Amino acid sequence: MSAPTSPVRSRIDHLRAAMRDANVQAVLVPSSDPHVSEYLPERWQGRAHFSGFTGSMGTLAVTPGKAALFADSRYWAQAEKELSGTGVSLVKVPQAAIRPALDWIVAELKPGNALSFDGQVLSLAAAQQVRGAMEAAGIQVKSDVDLLDAAWPDRPGLPDAKVYEHLAPEATVTRKAKLEGIRDAMQKAGATHHFISSLDDIAWLLNLRGADVTYNPVFVAHVLLDSRSATLFIAGGKVDKDLESRLAADGVKVSPYADAPRALAALPDGAVLLVDPRRITLGLREAVPSQVRVIEAVNPSTFAKSRKNAQEAEFVRRAMAEDGAAMCEFYARFEAALARGERVSELTVDEWITQARARRPGFVGRSFSTIAGFNANGALPHYRATEDSYAWIEGDGLLLIDSGAQYLGGTTDITRVWPIGRITAAHKRDFTLVLKGMINLSLAVFPRGTPGPMLDAIARLPLWQAGCDFGHGTGHGVGYFMNVHEGPQTISRAVVEPHMAMEPGMITSNEPGLYRAGQWGVRIENLVLNVPVETPEKGQFGDMLAFETLTLCPIDTRCIDRALLRADEIAWLNDYHATVRKRLAPLVTGVALDWLVARTEPI
Amino acid sequence: MSAPTSPVRSRIDHLRAAMRDANVQAVLVPSSDPHVSEYLPERWQGRAHFSGFTGSMGTLAVTPGKAALFADSRYWAQAEKELSGTGVSLVKVPQAAIRPALDWIVAELKPGNALSFDGQVLSLAAAQQVRGAMEAAGIQVKSDVDLLDAAWPDRPGLPDAKVYEHLAPEATVTRKAKLEGIRDAMQKAGATHHFISSLDDIAWLLNLRGADVTYNPVFVAHVLLDSRSATLFIAGGKVDKDLESRLAADGVKVSPYADAPRALAALPDGAVLLVDPRRITLGLREAVPSQVRVIEAVNPSTFAKSRKNAQEAEFVRRAMAEDGAAMCEFYARFEAALARGERVSELTVDEWITQARARRPGFVGRSFSTIAGFNANGALPHYRATEDSYAWIEGDGLLLIDSGAQYLGGTTDITRVWPIGRITAAHKRDFTLVLKGMINLSLAVFPRGTPGPMLDAIARLPLWQAGCDFGHGTGHGVGYFMNVHEGPQTISRAVVEPHMAMEPGMITSNEPGLYRAGQWGVRIENLVLNVPVETPEKGQFGDMLAFETLTLCPIDTRCIDRALLRADEIAWLNDYHATVRKRLAPLVTGVALDWLVARTEPI
Repeated sequence: MSAPTSPVRSRIDHLRAAMRDANVQAVLVPSSDPHVSEYLPERWQGRAHFSGFTGSMGTLAVTPGKAALFADSRYWAQAEKELSGTGVSLVKVPQAAIRPALDWIVAELKPGNALSFDGQVLSLAAAQQVRGAMEAAGIQVKSDVDLLDAAWPDRPGLPDAKVYEHLAPEATVTRKAKLEGIRDAMQKAGATHHFISSLDDIAWLLNLRGADVTYNPVFVAHVLLDSRSATLFIAGGKVDKDLESRLAADGVKVSPYADAPRALAALPDGAVLLVDPRRITLGLREAVPSQVRVIEAVNPSTFAKSRKNAQEAEFVRRAMAEDGAAMCEFYARFEAALARGERVSELTVDEWITQARARRPGFVGRSFSTIAGFNANGALPHYRATEDSYAWIEGDGLLLIDSGAQYLGGTTDITRVWPIGRITAAHKRDFTLVLKGMINLSLAVFPRGTPGPMLDAIARLPLWQAGCDFGHGTGHGVGYFMNVHEGPQTISRAVVEPHMAMEPGMITSNEPGLYRAGQWGVRIENLVLNVPVETPEKGQFGDMLAFETLTLCPIDTRCIDRALLRADEIAWLNDYHATVRKRLAPLVTGVALDWLVARTEPI
Repeated sequence: MSAPTSPVRSRIDHLRAAMRDANVQAVLVPSSDPHVSEYLPERWQGRAHFSGFTGSMGTLAVTPGKAALFADSRYWAQAEKELSGTGVSLVKVPQAAIRPALDWIVAELKPGNALSFDGQVLSLAAAQQVRGAMEAAGIQVKSDVDLLDAAWPDRPGLPDAKVYEHLAPEATVTRKAKLEGIRDAMQKAGATHHFISSLDDIAWLLNLRGADVTYNPVFVAHVLLDSRSATLFIAGGKVDKDLESRLAADGVKVSPYADAPRALAALPDGAVLLVDPRRITLGLREAVPSQVRVIEAVNPSTFAKSRKNAQEAEFVRRAMAEDGAAMCEFYARFEAALARGERVSELTVDEWITQARARRPGFVGRSFSTIAGFNANGALPHYRATEDSYAWIEGDGLLLIDSGAQYLGGTTDITRVWPIGRITAAHKRDFTLVLKGMINLSLAVFPRGTPGPMLDAIARLPLWQAGCDFGHGTGHGVGYFMNVHEGPQTISRAVVEPHMAMEPGMITSNEPGLYRAGQWGVRIENLVLNVPVETPEKGQFGDMLAFETLTLCPIDTRCIDRALLRADEIAWLNDYHATVRKRLAPLVTGVALDWLVARTEPI
């Protein structure tokens, strides 16, 4: 939380000085890096540095007289807190998109003024939008200067963590086979070359992992592929000799990180380059010579990565059991502590939950920053307790815990809500409405190709019927020992393209919620695997899909108003708890086992 | 149904001769007219004339060697029948759009070849798509010749039916007030002029009706508006002297139909013209001088027209009661005839239903071609019995009847399914699944701005759960004594734009279905009025909307498998039938009343 003496004020002063020197009247600071990542290495956290807002999405715009931060409803409460005292005003926007910031800049500037952004970090698609909007308003665009460098003296350098291999058995497809698969896709698209900037695509393709970004086991690099060879552009010292020779054996050469633009510039005449305009920056796109034909399409690896094979699904099921066992141990410890009258804070939750997970085989680290929010804090979907600001879990109310881990055999992400002290009928009603939404989607059968908004509606309907709604999507794709947010699929009301539809093998979260500002929040989240389903109609109405629930952890039945549940919803819940008990019981003992048995009783 | 000696073959020969004379290698014949209508005056039914396919949507493409008709799944069965023997092949496309026909033309032609279409009938938006696709393929485009004229010697002329006024009390807003409202919208958009080609927009705006198009009470005309005057471009003899002077009193001048392009060409320098690119043709758009600035936006009348006011809603409720009373009389007569062993055909249904409606006050005519389909014919969503091809309603099975009427106080559209002889458990299961979908949407509460696909999912879910689906949208907008299909809203899985969301006052159909080719079809359709709804949350999660069911007619409970219905679904049905009985009983007597009482018994 920023105090009135926020350091952000002087940082923005530095930025404005740099703007004056460069003769620009506005600077746009997006949440992005040279790899168009969601989670950014520190070097590229300029938006947080110059605004104080630490949420994972948001755009900053600065003019000589004003500074504005554009964030969607998930972040409004957090942004209001963090921006206080910084002089940066919050502009509430309906969804994460660059458009409102552009409209704001156009309104603030005059024709003939200049806007600057770092073309090395803005995606080609976004940069085209910026250029279009500014051109229409007669505003000049400078994308070849990085004003942040001048205004940020202690800016961190490139991350230098070592890269390591994701090995069999958890890596179920060899690097060679993956490279072949992508080359097949390149050939089908008519491309001779393919350039990849997105870090999870690269990590997946090469069966490599790293630690350059918090929570996401990826590393900063680019890859250039042709029909026979591949080059990994990566900072020196990150790949050791052994790994370099194993890569070479699979036809992958290691080159300096900074050489990527030069390699693009050196593409031969007649080359046809496949790039993903949403996953390559303007700067790199502009490095491509004009005589090279460019095919813009979604990276083939994005599709391949999203569809987990049968072996991977089986590893994920095992990781889910380990994760569920860790949950039992944590919750047993947590409830016992509260019962003894020990004081437990939101920060303790994070610590204990991570300790419990760290004891499970295959654990690598957390998959995102734990959200443990008691009462009003639980109403902030992206809340994070800090040393400066946290709550004690005492008195009465609801505790929301959203956490996850990376295992060698999969990535987890789970949200549960627990009753603390005495809870009211209103708490139970909200909990039950969210549970109904979650179960509705868990039970859904739907045709292949169904767009995300239609699935989203299935989870929302029970909340809508009660006059309620929630401001985030129902589900995001989840990687395999990889980013906890991955595409292409999404379950949200946002307009989607056909390539974003659900396909068998995809892992997605199912997490409806209900938030009462200043009071409490409810969110219940399982990860689900998409599977083809046999129906009595035998496909005459098209292929039908359904979800297998992967997450294994009790849903607290003390929070349920049973009268609000239909018979089929009760049956789903009791079946789920029977499965949870059966799968987790062999992995826990003592108080954790007692807790598991108590919390999986049928209702 | 086309016999092997189809006249279509020689018509296409004529068209190919015209193509040779004009030196073009392909001609595109869309379903369109100079007003971008859905239902076309005969003069513009070129696609039907040159292909034999009479469905309401579809595109024909002809080359020297091939002819292809592009239609979506609603029309596949019909098109297969009608195209047989014509030499025209059916290309099945996922949804009505011009794109697949363009891809086909690009594949068939070579760079340097030429494609012709009539720029006077293709919408600006579609024409831009055609030009883009052809340009990319190096194919020349000729849009200033109408090859159909040369190849169609007995082509019908302009329709000449008289125009008449829609009067108070059913016309609830004066022409003057409507003109003012549109001028306000023009001013807000920054436009000095506004050109309207869409026939329902014009009929609504001027409180006029006509009979140029079957079923739609509209007339062929254009309108040009500025801040003080308005010009109606219409063929001579359609507006009589009296009406002309009443129009003049409201500032509306009548000019010859053919003068519209000249009026656009004469727009003054500095004029800013508002046009709807989806509702104006390329030819008229090209008549606008280049120094006139053009604003492209949805016609303001489209929004105003879609939101029925409280008085209009009340007239619609009355029209629905009259329509429901006609249904009772028809069905009582129909059931009695069957009981007496009389032979009744699908054609008789249409005749009797129209007779029953014609006796009701305010009746003007049918609102679309009645669909009465017994068993396998009911599986064709757009089936129409003809003198050449119809079924007798005898033996066992399901009879689907989809019909509607125009009343001075509203437009109706209703589908019901009736058991004939003995029906099976499979019939009942299908009927009940569709009913569940229809009730689900009837009960839905949802936030303002919810996109159409999310509402569509609510109606589809019960069908999906059983492995079933249907190939048409769940709902279309319905006019007020106007077109039975109107925008902007839609309830379908098609990607929609924000301006197409549901708003209070809109009337929409709710008509899920289930079709088993060669066996039977089920569709249950009510019209629903969108209304704001008070929830216990008092708007803290946004404005919530819901549906009031307008259609009043029993749903045959003999087709229901009660075990498949939830308690809330049964409650909805019994409430609905209680309302139907209460509202219709005062309007019917004798056997019709007996029938009403019997068919509205609670289950």
